[in-house]
Amino acid sequence: MKRIGQFTLQTETRPFVESFAAVTGKKEKEGPLGPYFDYSYDDTTLGQDSWEKAESQLQTEAVQRALQKRQLANTDIDYIFAGDLLNQCISSTFGLRSLQIPFLGQYGACSTMCQTLAMAAVFVEGGAARRALAVTSSHFCSAERQFRFPLEYGGQRPPTAQWTVTASGAAVISQWGISSQKETTASQSSTNNGESVEKKPVISAITIGRIADLGVKDANNMGAAMAPAAAQTLADFFSDTKTRPTDYDLILTGDLGSVGSQLFEELLSNHDISLGNLHQDCGKMIFDPQKQDVHAGGSGCGCAGSVFCSKILTDIQKGVYRNVLFMATGALMSPTSSQQGESIPSIAHLIHVTAQ
Amino acid sequence: MKRIGQFTLQTETRPFVESFAAVTGKKEKEGPLGPYFDYSYDDTTLGQDSWEKAESQLQTEAVQRALQKRQLANTDIDYIFAGDLLNQCISSTFGLRSLQIPFLGQYGACSTMCQTLAMAAVFVEGGAARRALAVTSSHFCSAERQFRFPLEYGGQRPPTAQWTVTASGAAVISQWGISSQKETTASQSSTNNGESVEKKPVISAITIGRIADLGVKDANNMGAAMAPAAAQTLADFFSDTKTRPTDYDLILTGDLGSVGSQLFEELLSNHDISLGNLHQDCGKMIFDPQKQDVHAGGSGCGCAGSVFCSKILTDIQKGVYRNVLFMATGALMSPTSSQQGESIPSIAHLIHVTAQ
Repeated sequence: MKRIGQFTLQTETRPFVESFAAVTGKKEKEGPLGPYFDYSYDDTTLGQDSWEKAESQLQTEAVQRALQKRQLANTDIDYIFAGDLLNQCISSTFGLRSLQIPFLGQYGACSTMCQTLAMAAVFVEGGAARRALAVTSSHFCSAERQFRFPLEYGGQRPPTAQWTVTASGAAVISQWGISSQKETTASQSSTNNGESVEKKPVISAITIGRIADLGVKDANNMGAAMAPAAAQTLADFFSDTKTRPTDYDLILTGDLGSVGSQLFEELLSNHDISLGNLHQDCGKMIFDPQKQDVHAGGSGCGCAGSVFCSKILTDIQKGVYRNVLFMATGALMSPTSSQQGESIPSIAHLIHVTAQ
Repeated sequence: MKRIGQFTLQTETRPFVESFAAVTGKKEKEGPLGPYFDYSYDDTTLGQDSWEKAESQLQTEAVQRALQKRQLANTDIDYIFAGDLLNQCISSTFGLRSLQIPFLGQYGACSTMCQTLAMAAVFVEGGAARRALAVTSSHFCSAERQFRFPLEYGGQRPPTAQWTVTASGAAVISQWGISSQKETTASQSSTNNGESVEKKPVISAITIGRIADLGVKDANNMGAAMAPAAAQTLADFFSDTKTRPTDYDLILTGDLGSVGSQLFEELLSNHDISLGNLHQDCGKMIFDPQKQDVHAGGSGCGCAGSVFCSKILTDIQKGVYRNVLFMATGALMSPTSSQQGESIPSIAHLIHVTAQ
């Protein structure tokens, strides 16, 4: 591992995403990315008797599918890095308790997918793990109840509000070369001819964010609260690596939504950085803004998690993208801190993924 | 980094605790370890207008003191690993937001001190960080309100209940040799003669726990819920390293308290492991059971945090202990999961600290 500049790590041993899966609810299935998800439940309860148990089930299912795709056993995974939005991260602990894999709970709010991927990559790169699993989730109903109002209240949502995505994304990060046998089998079965060799998504660099807080207090405008953190981390990364936006195929933010994305691009212009049409946002991609009535877009840990662990990683494997910056953002508040008049601190973590 | 057995990591570059600090409330100051704490507040509000802000202030203060002791600047710290018990970990995010240090939120309930120390050590060992900071906290009043009853209710506590410690512990984990200059200055000033050279506490091995759940549902008996995780992790460590209790000077658990400690020792006997008088528990050490009316002992992230980052690390520096196993345990439930009839999953992470 090499430290570059003040905030960026460059990996040297090519930790890569060996397997991944995304599991969602019905509304997500009906969105533009529906065909990319591994499995979608028609029933938002997932057959459970509480929303929290339903969210746990999303993680259980996403992890099982990520393992099964490459015929991996639980014992092939040395560590699991998991987190979610619920108090005391219960979606993760209850969803994964039966796995018997050493467990490291992470809390980065909606930045969790990048945080868990970064931690897994550092562990694999440093030799602490041969394989590590990164997973996160969110559920519209458990999040509404905890952070806003019970669904039964039927509260009116302002236009800046985002819709918490019901989904989980899971990815297995592995040492380069470790999995050749299992991988060859899996790749061959999904390859039609000798030419279309599947690329491996390698986590090439990591920039862990610093907390940013420009004083936004509106818990119905998370995009605005998170935009400063996203701009700061991306500017740090470009400065550390001495690269610029056009060096990448895609710069993907987690869930700034339409309001936050615009602010993010404005804040970047203060750093003389223009992303042009390279910027996409998972919160804007996952729902159809015309047909799905989600106001400013999708949000929640499961938003970035399910978009990255489906379409994006698939496109990197196919060679559609060769050089992606993925940056999930999180709002580090709680209902209690907001009730006490506090502003919303936010954070953004970045990973640089290359197709190799 | 070397993997030993199925669950244990052995470090090779001697990541060590360069500095540490513990900050507490008044009741903790009045306990047997009072003289070891760096600072204790007489006023449980810490001059803040909410219990949550008071808890944040504990972390701010502990981190500042840990940095100041070795004349470290914020920019000397590459990453901060922090977590606490409050919903969305707001003690950490609000307490540390102004530091401008890359931030990685951790959630391990009361196991957080070991988890953050382990993460910091892995980052330093793998070359991801030159120095990383580990910090956690808890506060009696914020915890009571969130997990049990508002203080004003004056609820009766059962004999198995533990008393959440109002404290924060912080430790800087550094690459061996990096700090020679600053350290020499600091050591010389605290050393009376050439003979009493201060030992360095080195994190020599790490065992990350798996979630254990034997079905305990009583949120007023956390010790019983956490004992199985502690027994499992310690048995894993002994099995991986082919060592036994008498190879160590001290086997320190985080906050099993009196009820949990007894169950822990009973569960270990199923593995044919007897700790004899090597076992101590931070929850039993921090308060005087005769005079302080804390029922089964202390608990909370700040319990293990403040005991380890005061007396224990000081004793390792002095050479009183040369070979310590420190294992903090966490109960991974939430009030919501308990209200929904769920049992309490628990976890324990272990670090092996040697004096070098």
